[in-house]
Amino acid sequence: MEFNNKYQCYLDYINEALERFLQVRETPEKACYEAMKYSLMAGGKRIRPVLSLAVCDLLGKNYEDVIAYACAIEMIHTYSLIHDDLPSMDNDDYRRGRLTNHKVYGEALAILAGDALLNYAFEIMTEDALKNIDIIVNKVKAMQYIAKASGVTGMIGGQVVDLQSEGKKIPLETLTYMHGCKTGAMIKAPVVSSAIICGADDFRISRLSVFAEKIGLAFQIKDDILDVEGDLSTLGKNSGSDASNDKTTYITEYGLEDAKRILNEVTDEAVGALECFGVEADFLRNIAEFIAKRNN
Amino acid sequence: MEFNNKYQCYLDYINEALERFLQVRETPEKACYEAMKYSLMAGGKRIRPVLSLAVCDLLGKNYEDVIAYACAIEMIHTYSLIHDDLPSMDNDDYRRGRLTNHKVYGEALAILAGDALLNYAFEIMTEDALKNIDIIVNKVKAMQYIAKASGVTGMIGGQVVDLQSEGKKIPLETLTYMHGCKTGAMIKAPVVSSAIICGADDFRISRLSVFAEKIGLAFQIKDDILDVEGDLSTLGKNSGSDASNDKTTYITEYGLEDAKRILNEVTDEAVGALECFGVEADFLRNIAEFIAKRNN
Repeated sequence: MEFNNKYQCYLDYINEALERFLQVRETPEKACYEAMKYSLMAGGKRIRPVLSLAVCDLLGKNYEDVIAYACAIEMIHTYSLIHDDLPSMDNDDYRRGRLTNHKVYGEALAILAGDALLNYAFEIMTEDALKNIDIIVNKVKAMQYIAKASGVTGMIGGQVVDLQSEGKKIPLETLTYMHGCKTGAMIKAPVVSSAIICGADDFRISRLSVFAEKIGLAFQIKDDILDVEGDLSTLGKNSGSDASNDKTTYITEYGLEDAKRILNEVTDEAVGALECFGVEADFLRNIAEFIAKRNN
Repeated sequence: MEFNNKYQCYLDYINEALERFLQVRETPEKACYEAMKYSLMAGGKRIRPVLSLAVCDLLGKNYEDVIAYACAIEMIHTYSLIHDDLPSMDNDDYRRGRLTNHKVYGEALAILAGDALLNYAFEIMTEDALKNIDIIVNKVKAMQYIAKASGVTGMIGGQVVDLQSEGKKIPLETLTYMHGCKTGAMIKAPVVSSAIICGADDFRISRLSVFAEKIGLAFQIKDDILDVEGDLSTLGKNSGSDASNDKTTYITEYGLEDAKRILNEVTDEAVGALECFGVEADFLRNIAEFIAKRNN
C-alpha cells in the first residue's frame, strides 16, 4: 500500500481508538473530560502511535495488543503540550492553529486536564494489561519503558533542562542531551514498547531502538528548521518563537545549511538501522523520510 | 505496641523508603529532583502510606510487597498539593509551614516537578511489579485501582468540581460527591490496593473499603473544621482560607456543631466496619480516632 494511504489507515484506527478510550461523561467533572478531549482530538500527525502500529505490523502482531499503549503515549504527549503552552512555561496562545487549552478553559483547568491525561494513560495501560494475563509481563515491561521515557529521566527531565537553558548559551552536549530526553525518549517509547509487547528478540529491539533514536533526533532538528522557516499558516503557530526566546537550537549551533545536512545524515542512519528487516520495514523507512521532509 | 510508637515505626519505614526511591541525581535535570524532593520530604502525617502498611500488617504480609505502592500514593498526593498551591489554583504561599514549591522553584519548575512525581509513582510501581512475576496480576490490579483513584474519576475529577464550585453555593449532593472523589478516593486507594496485593478475599476487601470510605469522609469534615478552628501555628497555613474563598464546606452546610456530630458518627461507622478483623485491627481503629482528633 502506498505510504500516504497506509498512514491514513493507521491514523483512522488511532483516532477511533482515542475516541473510544476517552468518552465525555455526564458527571460533575464533565468539564475536565471536555478539556482533555479538546487537546487530545485536536488532530496532529499522531506520529508516535503511528510508529507503535507500524512496528506491530512489522512484527506480524495484532493492533489490539498495542493500541492502548499507542494511545497512552499520545495522551502523555498531549498533556506535555498543554503544560508546555501555559503562561508560566512557553506562554503560547495557539497550537495547531487553535487556541491553546488554557486560553479556552483557563489555566487551572488546563493544568488539571493535563494531569488527568497523564494519569489516564496509566489507567488505560493497566486496564489493558489485565485483559490478557498470558502476556501481562511484556505489557508491564512496556509500561515501565513508557513511564521512564515520559518521566524525570526522559521527557520531563528534558523540559527542565530546556527551561533552565532559556536565554543562555548551552554547550552542544547539553543540547543533544536535552533533545534526547525531551523529544527522543517519547519517539523511542512507541517503537520499543510496541516491540516489547510483540515479543521481539533483543537484537530486533536494539535495531528498532537505534532507528527510533535517529528519527527522534531528526524530528528535533527538523523542528528547529521549521521554527526558522515555517510560517503561521502551515505550522499553526508563530514561527521564530525559539529565536525570540533566545533558545539554543540546532540552527543557532550549526547554522541552517549545516543543520539540514545533519538532518539528512541522521535520516540515512535511521533507514540503515532497519536493514535486517528487509522490505517489510519500508513503511518505517518512509516515516524517517516523512519526518525529514514534513513542513509542519 | 502503643499507637504513637507503632505510627512512628511506620513513618520511619516510609520516610526511609521515600528517600531510597527518590535520590537526587547529578544530571542536567538535577533541579527537577530537588523540587520533587522538596515537597515529597516536607514531612506531613503520611497517613496514606501508613494505611497501606497497617493493612499489610493486618493481613500478615511483608511491607516489602506494598511499600512501592504506598510510596507511589504519597508521591501522587504530594504532586496534587504542588499543583493545588499554584497561583492559578489556590495560590498558596505556605504549606506545612514552609514556602510552597512554586515560591521556591518558580511556577514552571513546580508544574514539571508535580508532573514528574505523578509519573514517578508509576515508574516505581511498574518496576516493583516486575520484581516478582508470581504476584504481578495482583500488583497490576492494585496499580489500576490507584490510577483510577487519582484520575478524572477520582482525585482530579474532585478537584475540577471543587474548582468550579468556588464562589458559589453547591448542593450537598455535589459537596459529598466532590469530597468522595477529591479526598476519599486517595484515602481508599492505599487501603484497598494494599489489601489486593496481600491477596485478601472480596469480603475483607469490601469491609476495608467501607472503613476507608468512612475515614476519608471524616478526614474531609475534620479538614473543614480545622480550617475554621485552626491557626497558622498548629496548621502551618492560614486558617479560614475556605471561607475567604466562598467555598461550600461541611461547616457552611451544617454549622460547626453539627459537623462535629457527623464527624463522630462517621468515625464510629469506620470503626464498626472492622468488626470481622477483631483486635488485630486496633491500629486501624485508632487511626480513625486519630483523624477525628488531630489538630493539624
